[in-house]
Amino acid sequence: MTQKAGERERCVTGIEGLDTILYGGIPRSNTILLTGSCGTGKTSLAMEFLIHGAVQGENSLFVSVTEDSEKLLANIIPYKFFDRELMKSGRLIFIDLPVLYESLGMNKAELSMEEVDLLVDAIARMARELQVKRLVVDSITSVCYKLKTPEMIRDFILKLSKALSDLKCTSILVSEVGAHSTSYSMFGVEEAVADGIVLMANMERRGDLLRTLQVIKMRGTMHSRAKYVLDLTSTGVLLVPLLKGGST
Amino acid sequence: MTQKAGERERCVTGIEGLDTILYGGIPRSNTILLTGSCGTGKTSLAMEFLIHGAVQGENSLFVSVTEDSEKLLANIIPYKFFDRELMKSGRLIFIDLPVLYESLGMNKAELSMEEVDLLVDAIARMARELQVKRLVVDSITSVCYKLKTPEMIRDFILKLSKALSDLKCTSILVSEVGAHSTSYSMFGVEEAVADGIVLMANMERRGDLLRTLQVIKMRGTMHSRAKYVLDLTSTGVLLVPLLKGGST
Amino acid sequence: MTQKAGERERCVTGIEGLDTILYGGIPRSNTILLTGSCGTGKTSLAMEFLIHGAVQGENSLFVSVTEDSEKLLANIIPYKFFDRELMKSGRLIFIDLPVLYESLGMNKAELSMEEVDLLVDAIARMARELQVKRLVVDSITSVCYKLKTPEMIRDFILKLSKALSDLKCTSILVSEVGAHSTSYSMFGVEEAVADGIVLMANMERRGDLLRTLQVIKMRGTMHSRAKYVLDLTSTGVLLVPLLKGGST
Amino acid sequence: MTQKAGERERCVTGIEGLDTILYGGIPRSNTILLTGSCGTGKTSLAMEFLIHGAVQGENSLFVSVTEDSEKLLANIIPYKFFDRELMKSGRLIFIDLPVLYESLGMNKAELSMEEVDLLVDAIARMARELQVKRLVVDSITSVCYKLKTPEMIRDFILKLSKALSDLKCTSILVSEVGAHSTSYSMFGVEEAVADGIVLMANMERRGDLLRTLQVIKMRGTMHSRAKYVLDLTSTGVLLVPLLKGGST
Amino acid sequence: MTQKAGERERCVTGIEGLDTILYGGIPRSNTILLTGSCGTGKTSLAMEFLIHGAVQGENSLFVSVTEDSEKLLANIIPYKFFDRELMKSGRLIFIDLPVLYESLGMNKAELSMEEVDLLVDAIARMARELQVKRLVVDSITSVCYKLKTPEMIRDFILKLSKALSDLKCTSILVSEVGAHSTSYSMFGVEEAVADGIVLMANMERRGDLLRTLQVIKMRGTMHSRAKYVLDLTSTGVLLVPLLKGGST
Amino acid sequence: MTQKAGERERCVTGIEGLDTILYGGIPRSNTILLTGSCGTGKTSLAMEFLIHGAVQGENSLFVSVTEDSEKLLANIIPYKFFDRELMKSGRLIFIDLPVLYESLGMNKAELSMEEVDLLVDAIARMARELQVKRLVVDSITSVCYKLKTPEMIRDFILKLSKALSDLKCTSILVSEVGAHSTSYSMFGVEEAVADGIVLMANMERRGDLLRTLQVIKMRGTMHSRAKYVLDLTSTGVLLVPLLKGGST
Repeated sequence: MTQKAGERERCVTGIEGLDTILYGGIPRSNTILLTGSCGTGKTSLAMEFLIHGAVQGENSLFVSVTEDSEKLLANIIPYKFFDRELMKSGRLIFIDLPVLYESLGMNKAELSMEEVDLLVDAIARMARELQVKRLVVDSITSVCYKLKTPEMIRDFILKLSKALSDLKCTSILVSEVGAHSTSYSMFGVEEAVADGIVLMANMERRGDLLRTLQVIKMRGTMHSRAKYVLDLTSTGVLLVPLLKGGST
Repeated sequence: MTQKAGERERCVTGIEGLDTILYGGIPRSNTILLTGSCGTGKTSLAMEFLIHGAVQGENSLFVSVTEDSEKLLANIIPYKFFDRELMKSGRLIFIDLPVLYESLGMNKAELSMEEVDLLVDAIARMARELQVKRLVVDSITSVCYKLKTPEMIRDFILKLSKALSDLKCTSILVSEVGAHSTSYSMFGVEEAVADGIVLMANMERRGDLLRTLQVIKMRGTMHSRAKYVLDLTSTGVLLVPLLKGGST
Repeated sequence: MTQKAGERERCVTGIEGLDTILYGGIPRSNTILLTGSCGTGKTSLAMEFLIHGAVQGENSLFVSVTEDSEKLLANIIPYKFFDRELMKSGRLIFIDLPVLYESLGMNKAELSMEEVDLLVDAIARMARELQVKRLVVDSITSVCYKLKTPEMIRDFILKLSKALSDLKCTSILVSEVGAHSTSYSMFGVEEAVADGIVLMANMERRGDLLRTLQVIKMRGTMHSRAKYVLDLTSTGVLLVPLLKGGST
Repeated sequence: MTQKAGERERCVTGIEGLDTILYGGIPRSNTILLTGSCGTGKTSLAMEFLIHGAVQGENSLFVSVTEDSEKLLANIIPYKFFDRELMKSGRLIFIDLPVLYESLGMNKAELSMEEVDLLVDAIARMARELQVKRLVVDSITSVCYKLKTPEMIRDFILKLSKALSDLKCTSILVSEVGAHSTSYSMFGVEEAVADGIVLMANMERRGDLLRTLQVIKMRGTMHSRAKYVLDLTSTGVLLVPLLKGGST
Repeated sequence: MTQKAGERERCVTGIEGLDTILYGGIPRSNTILLTGSCGTGKTSLAMEFLIHGAVQGENSLFVSVTEDSEKLLANIIPYKFFDRELMKSGRLIFIDLPVLYESLGMNKAELSMEEVDLLVDAIARMARELQVKRLVVDSITSVCYKLKTPEMIRDFILKLSKALSDLKCTSILVSEVGAHSTSYSMFGVEEAVADGIVLMANMERRGDLLRTLQVIKMRGTMHSRAKYVLDLTSTGVLLVPLLKGGST
Repeated sequence: MTQKAGERERCVTGIEGLDTILYGGIPRSNTILLTGSCGTGKTSLAMEFLIHGAVQGENSLFVSVTEDSEKLLANIIPYKFFDRELMKSGRLIFIDLPVLYESLGMNKAELSMEEVDLLVDAIARMARELQVKRLVVDSITSVCYKLKTPEMIRDFILKLSKALSDLKCTSILVSEVGAHSTSYSMFGVEEAVADGIVLMANMERRGDLLRTLQVIKMRGTMHSRAKYVLDLTSTGVLLVPLLKGGST
């Protein structure tokens, strides 16, 4: 772990274990795919990443696709590191994608190539105007269901990622996979165009179901690829190496 | 288990083991996916959840999709915790979805986007008028067969769940999966939009077929993710940890 | 096994082991899915269920879909519990579904929604007129091949099962699955609408291929879910627990 | 093995081991599916069944679908139990199905319902005129490729099997499955309408690839279901139990 | 191994181990499917078969489908058993199928039934005019991609094989399967119409990837079915039994 | 390892371990498929291959399909073996394929046969004009998504590979496969037309995720097929045999 970790500036996630795994944080401007099945803690981790950003003074935007942001909020209020002030000050912003769809007149089940471009533009404009430095889309999978070919999905993620990168915004795209899936994504192409892949999974052990986290890939930095056990506590995500000696 | 379990109000299921697993009950207004293959005890558990609610004075509605509610009733009468008075007093209500379909003029094998909205409205109106606080749909899978795309299924469950949540109704959507399936749902998308996932399964052990229960995810509360053995008895569902030390 | 088994009346199968497994027999009016791959003994078991019924004075109807009933008969004559008088007295009745199709003018490979209703009506009318109390369809799978969507298959089985249940007729629907399949049915939906599932399978053991039987689900009664070894003998089906201690 | 094997007349295959497995031979008039992947010895076994029949004075017909019967003949001449006289005397008859197709004007890749009936009639007429008592179709799979739905395949095999059974002809339909397939047939429906299933397979053992034979199902007789090792020798098929004690 | 191996004339491959496995060589006029995934040595083996033929004075034709024959040549020149004179004398002939396609005016991605016949005729005419006794098509899979149904693929291989057999030409059809595939062919039907199947595979052992060869089927001769380890050396293919005692 | 490795000229990759595995380097003019799932190090290896080429005075072209070459550059600058001068001198050239698409007027999601030819020509012309001796396409999979049939994909790779080979250009085509896939390519046909396959994979070991490399196939040279552990360091790719004794 004495290797030089490269020169790119870091976006410190504030999740201690994860910053260590990444040799200091996510390379700024990277777009990360945060992959896992239901209940593996994806939303919790992504939320904590945003709240830490907001606390550190970086404007942070949560784009909610499937869950009402009000309901979302009801579930994070008990977390000790959450402070309602962050929202009042405009540091932590929530937007429901269905609202955005509506304002863009996109009411069909399927998006056309042109609508994809409009959608990327709308998100990018919002990020620019609000000077967003951290962004989460939860989930990108939910958007991808509206795109009909792997090529369109690649295209969408590429363009979104490029637009956000140009704004120096570090982004987490939440990716849902089926229970016990060993894929990184639902459609099999999302991962190929992301700058990093963080895999969250379930692991059965002695009748219990542990959560695990593993960084598969991260462009622009050295990183551990070891598997960590993840605990969701009221003080946030805790990461413990599954096995000693398990770092690159 | 000394962690603060969050501040959301609880819907006490009345199934002792399950309330312990959930640190006090299902967070009120949550929509739960109760998943399992045939014979794992889904209907029994959901029924007991409703009866306990009715006994505690909460109006409880069973929306039956595949089974005639009369036939259903014949099978629960032997249960010791069931009391016919609950039905007479209007605390425990049964409705057959096919009857509702008919009254809405939905007689095709496939539902359109508009009909989905009508269906959600009809269920929500009934829940509002009857002041329902607990609701079961058995099974949601059966409804989903009438929806032709994953996007429509997500949409349907999202809208239904939002409408019920707005009424402070705690709901269980029964989800059927194939024998030996390791998925949480038939179409692979139902789980992504639910607030919680309770997985019921079969487990072969020494020539016998045990039933198991495991809470995979529950928004708004800490919970155990350990696997429990479930017994169906005439006094209701019994839950025993599969292995000691198996709680989070 | 001292638990109260509920109050529903029983249809005693006459297959000793099976009645024990079911705490006295199949709850009367239930529709059972009898599932298994080729050669697991489905037809033999179903036939014995009918013959025992006929001997006990209950009119019993075998609806043959794939095999000529004459050929069928040639194979059961050697069984010691079979008596040709049962047929002459009208207690044991055979009908070939292809003949019924023809009389209904259904000569296409595919059945429409309306034809499904006609078919259910025709079977129900026959059961009513002949005062049938036990019915076997061998195989339901063969009928389902003529139905083009899972929704139609669910619908068909639901309607048939409701019509037979209304006549207090206890029914066995034979369900074919592929070799080594772990599903309960060919199309994955048949089991969801049945009142019970009895699974017959092959089990390789020391170079031999044993037959096994397991009751996965039975509405309206407690039952063992243990796996039994099934022997086909000239005196009928014999069931022996695979392992001691294997009952619920 | 002291059980009464039923009353149906037997067609003695002449393959000693197989007749023992079947308690005396195939029940006469049965239609058997002989299933296996390439190289498991299906054609050799079927051929030997026919030759033994011819030697015993029963007219035997080989319907070749994929291989030129001349080429076929070149490969069986070295067998010690083959005698050219059998062909000259008309006891052993070969016909190439492509020739039959042509004479019936069936030159399309796909057969219609009517053509299937014509084909069955043509085969049955030939069997009747030549007084055939043993018939092999090698392979039925090859014919099934021309049928476009599972229902048509079931129909075809049912009708063929009924027509041959009416002529008291005992038939073997050769069924090809893929390497390492655990199915009994290519399309998954052929086995459901056959009176018997004989499974031939490969088994890797210490770097060698053994051939095995197992009778999965046989209507009208008791039979062993144990797995036998099959050897192809110049004096014909040899069968040895894989493990002692492996019979029903 | 003292069994009489039949009377058919042999085509001695010249690959010592293989001729032993086949009790003297491939029965002359047989069409063999040589199956394996990338890098298992199919082309090398087929090439050596042709070169040995040419050396022994039999005209040998390599039909290259995917690789330019010039490039092919560059890779075999280092082999010690190759002699450029073989080509000059016309004993060893290379033809690129794309060139043949062009000369036949077949420039579409898909071949019609008629074009398949034309193609078979063209190859057969060439084989006849050049008096070819050994022929390799590398790969047949590549041709099959142009055929749209399993029936057409069977048809094509049957006709080609019959035409070549009529010329007393012994042929190897190279069949590509995916990595780790356990099938004998890409489309699942090629093997059913071949006279023999030689399977080449990879086998992981202690971190290395061994090549193996196994004869699954060979019409017209006894043969070993044991697995051999195959080594590609500059003096040609070497075959060593994987395990002692592994022959039939 | 004393075998004569053939006579073809080598393209020394400059990655020490890999050149040893290949008995001196990639045979010049070969087109290699570099296969692996996300995060296995494909881009790093391909980039190092190009940089070493540029340092040795060979013009090297990186065709980027999914990633912006600017972003790409940001990630390789920290590598010690990278020198910005290589780009200024024109030895190391980056081109974004989307730019090329645009200049060719190819703005549809799907490419026609003619457009494939145009694309191959454009790449070949560029390679010729810039006198490119090493070329990387990252990834070819991304291009293949625009081709609609396996036949077109084969065609495309064949033509590209032939055009580059004619220019004596040694090429690496990066091939993406899914996580845990054991295939060599996404569409299953890419590998059949490549001159070599280098497989990169993940390997779980004691809670860590190692990267491995294995040469499956390489036309025109002897090579090891053993599995190597691959380390990405700031001084480039390091290869260590997974197990001693693991070379051919």
